[in-house]
Amino acid sequence: MSKNLTTREQDYSKWYNELVVKADLAENSAVRGCMVIKPYGYAIWEKMQAELDRMFKETGHQNAYFPLFVPKSLFEAEEKNAEGFAKECAVVTHYRLKNDPENPGKLMVDPEAKLEEELVVRPTSEAIIWSTYKNWIQSYRDLPIKINQWANVVRWEMRTRLFLRTSEFLWQEGHTAHETKKEALEETELMNDIYAEFAEKFMAIPVVKGAKSENEKFAGALETYCIEALMQDGKALQAGTSHFLGQNFAKAFDVKYASKEGGLEYVWATSWGVSTRLMGALIMTHSDDKGLVLPPNLAPIQVVIIPIYKGEEQLQQISEVANKMVKELRAVGVSVKFDNNDNQKPGWKFAQYELQGVPVRLAIGPKDLEKGTVELARRDTLTKEFVNQDEVVSKIKALMTTIQDDLFEKAKKFRDEHITAVDTFDEFKKVLKDKGGFISAHWDGTSETENRIKELTKATIRCIPFDSKEEQGKCVLTGEKSERRVLFAKAY
Amino acid sequence: MSKNLTTREQDYSKWYNELVVKADLAENSAVRGCMVIKPYGYAIWEKMQAELDRMFKETGHQNAYFPLFVPKSLFEAEEKNAEGFAKECAVVTHYRLKNDPENPGKLMVDPEAKLEEELVVRPTSEAIIWSTYKNWIQSYRDLPIKINQWANVVRWEMRTRLFLRTSEFLWQEGHTAHETKKEALEETELMNDIYAEFAEKFMAIPVVKGAKSENEKFAGALETYCIEALMQDGKALQAGTSHFLGQNFAKAFDVKYASKEGGLEYVWATSWGVSTRLMGALIMTHSDDKGLVLPPNLAPIQVVIIPIYKGEEQLQQISEVANKMVKELRAVGVSVKFDNNDNQKPGWKFAQYELQGVPVRLAIGPKDLEKGTVELARRDTLTKEFVNQDEVVSKIKALMTTIQDDLFEKAKKFRDEHITAVDTFDEFKKVLKDKGGFISAHWDGTSETENRIKELTKATIRCIPFDSKEEQGKCVLTGEKSERRVLFAKAY
Repeated sequence: MSKNLTTREQDYSKWYNELVVKADLAENSAVRGCMVIKPYGYAIWEKMQAELDRMFKETGHQNAYFPLFVPKSLFEAEEKNAEGFAKECAVVTHYRLKNDPENPGKLMVDPEAKLEEELVVRPTSEAIIWSTYKNWIQSYRDLPIKINQWANVVRWEMRTRLFLRTSEFLWQEGHTAHETKKEALEETELMNDIYAEFAEKFMAIPVVKGAKSENEKFAGALETYCIEALMQDGKALQAGTSHFLGQNFAKAFDVKYASKEGGLEYVWATSWGVSTRLMGALIMTHSDDKGLVLPPNLAPIQVVIIPIYKGEEQLQQISEVANKMVKELRAVGVSVKFDNNDNQKPGWKFAQYELQGVPVRLAIGPKDLEKGTVELARRDTLTKEFVNQDEVVSKIKALMTTIQDDLFEKAKKFRDEHITAVDTFDEFKKVLKDKGGFISAHWDGTSETENRIKELTKATIRCIPFDSKEEQGKCVLTGEKSERRVLFAKAY
Repeated sequence: MSKNLTTREQDYSKWYNELVVKADLAENSAVRGCMVIKPYGYAIWEKMQAELDRMFKETGHQNAYFPLFVPKSLFEAEEKNAEGFAKECAVVTHYRLKNDPENPGKLMVDPEAKLEEELVVRPTSEAIIWSTYKNWIQSYRDLPIKINQWANVVRWEMRTRLFLRTSEFLWQEGHTAHETKKEALEETELMNDIYAEFAEKFMAIPVVKGAKSENEKFAGALETYCIEALMQDGKALQAGTSHFLGQNFAKAFDVKYASKEGGLEYVWATSWGVSTRLMGALIMTHSDDKGLVLPPNLAPIQVVIIPIYKGEEQLQQISEVANKMVKELRAVGVSVKFDNNDNQKPGWKFAQYELQGVPVRLAIGPKDLEKGTVELARRDTLTKEFVNQDEVVSKIKALMTTIQDDLFEKAKKFRDEHITAVDTFDEFKKVLKDKGGFISAHWDGTSETENRIKELTKATIRCIPFDSKEEQGKCVLTGEKSERRVLFAKAY
């Protein structure tokens, strides 16, 4: 397969699809809309998981595991949630296949093995978890419950794209139960903050924190907080959500607790999740026409060493230098690969590791042996320099932080340059068309207006930013009074 | 809920079921046969996962993720595998629910959203993975492929028990592809060895390594290797399996590679897995009538400190000592909890942590403050002693190894005492009835005999041990010639 990618300018969407496959991150499977996450892509996901898991546990959450299936009667209990997910769910109706008498060697659904009640493959687990919490919660002493689950979920999407929208995806979903509204709201905000911190510090992706409008919030939530990121093509991507569920699920499943004061109260709930969609955000925030660009925190291989040699003797001399570096780099916690595979030429390897986004490449040739140097190339800036061999380790250790920070700053600069305040609908349309990005505009607060703007421009309200100031203005579409700007964008 | 367990002698099966629930490991869910793994149980599973994952990666395996669903046409491709799992699989037939016009507020399967091809929820992933490997493998240069997946699988079991047999369970499944039969057989053996090492060194569960008989091997495998453990009630438990799949799946999915010699050859395959069933093995190997007994390697809390006090001042003095110990123990890598919860009495806490199998309990009272001591209790031996406060950390650090080793030795002694060689069928039945355990007996090598013995005694061949010596003998049932003893037992 050729390594040359379609460029972003040629076709951003095609560039993305090609990159995911060529960099060995994921591919489509034999199952409609479901992906195979390949080892290199999965190694990045594992790094995200480990860091998020650490952050969850540090804030008092525990992991658990709930069933994959939701019986229909539980699924339909919380009406809005059910309505939101019923349209696109996988339904198990039978528990056996049998030999097809008309097609030898083929199987068919056994009509005698029909389930009494259909099972929905979880699109999200509020229903199954709240039917469980009911038995766990009697008194205020049983609260709070702060549980997270790492799991697969299924939503029968009609148009799918690797990582961004797949019928099955991997995620974590937190589900917490609290005594008071205040505590639940604080949890909702805390988890949204954790997602923001994770995105910015760990993934080097700048995000806007805010609340979703009525139209865009989670089915069954009273409030949905979110982190919104901006991709290089000017489209927004929702990177994580944290929901304040109020007492909706407690009422649907009759979950009450005896309060300190002796009353019987419905429990307050939150849920929050991020998914393998983050892989899409990662790719589209940092990568370029040569391939993936990975922040050091997420790179399965942070440094690759490539020998440039003729003959066994040179290779051996270079290997000596390289192996010493490998050892020293590992000792300071840098993951490194010495690629001495003889089947591929250095040029091929250079292109391969660029495509796969390895942050730092070291090349060692015969001249370097003489001079005691090594050629160091940064993937993010595509710059090269010669470094003394005895300075390589300290240099690289510092570079890991530098690259991580630079990637964030670069993405932040791009994002900040693509937040445009507009005051008329003509401007709105012009900016959306010419420049893209977030459009900060006044809105009259109604779903009708939001829907109308979506119809006219395909842009939706990404969020009502938490840091937006009160400001008197007029709705960009209707001219009605507005007291706060919101962020619109076309979105993934 | 009362903490008093049914004793093992009263009813082993009931003891197990109660223990799983009362120790907060897992419970049944609203979905038939599916369990909820509670935080305490899941924390133990996470420790198993982390160690296994480390061992897999150390031996050159990578993680990846394949779809939950297997289209029926792929599922049926490898005939024996399909036959083995078709009888008990969950089948997705529809992708939407709609409002039920006859029952307001209820949902029904939308008959217009019927899938063209049914999807089987994976009972195991050979089919979906080998349909993928087909695209990954062209030449010997693409081999070996050594991939592991952490996933949930579903087998529609009719009689389920928490951890031991559930319709959905969590597991890892390794799937490897090789150039040669020899290499695949070596991989099969290596992974079985890794399982054995993990069981013995990490879980303190002694196992017998061996091969399955024709009757008991995996559907689609040429050879199944296994590790077999013995529970306290004398029943065996298959704790892990590693399959040599030959070229069965390569042929079913037409996966060939261009060899070094220029030919086109079918690929050789293995698969191997362990599951949350290991939780059952863990519980039934070590625990007692007071509750769970956990090896230190698997204990979410290794040490609990309980203050015994009257009044705030005593508590404060004790807390000072305890907090210092907590800090010092954590510094040497011991996980510790200081339970100063004022709502529960020390006696209640003692029973609770015994029930949950915390390996070491420290109690500190006013007398201990005077004398500079602490009462140290071992969960496994239920012994107590007073230890000087300044010796606690070094003492506990050593104890972590001692307890781990002692648990293994105790379980090994029990297991070894419960391997009985018999030469007649009367003896066979008598030992099985009076003593249980593994019965080492000659067998004529036929499925008929194995089936007949199973009918007569409920015992099956657990394995043909790798270390069994060649020995001339006569089949315990038929008197036919045999050259090797095999291990029979009743099994979970």
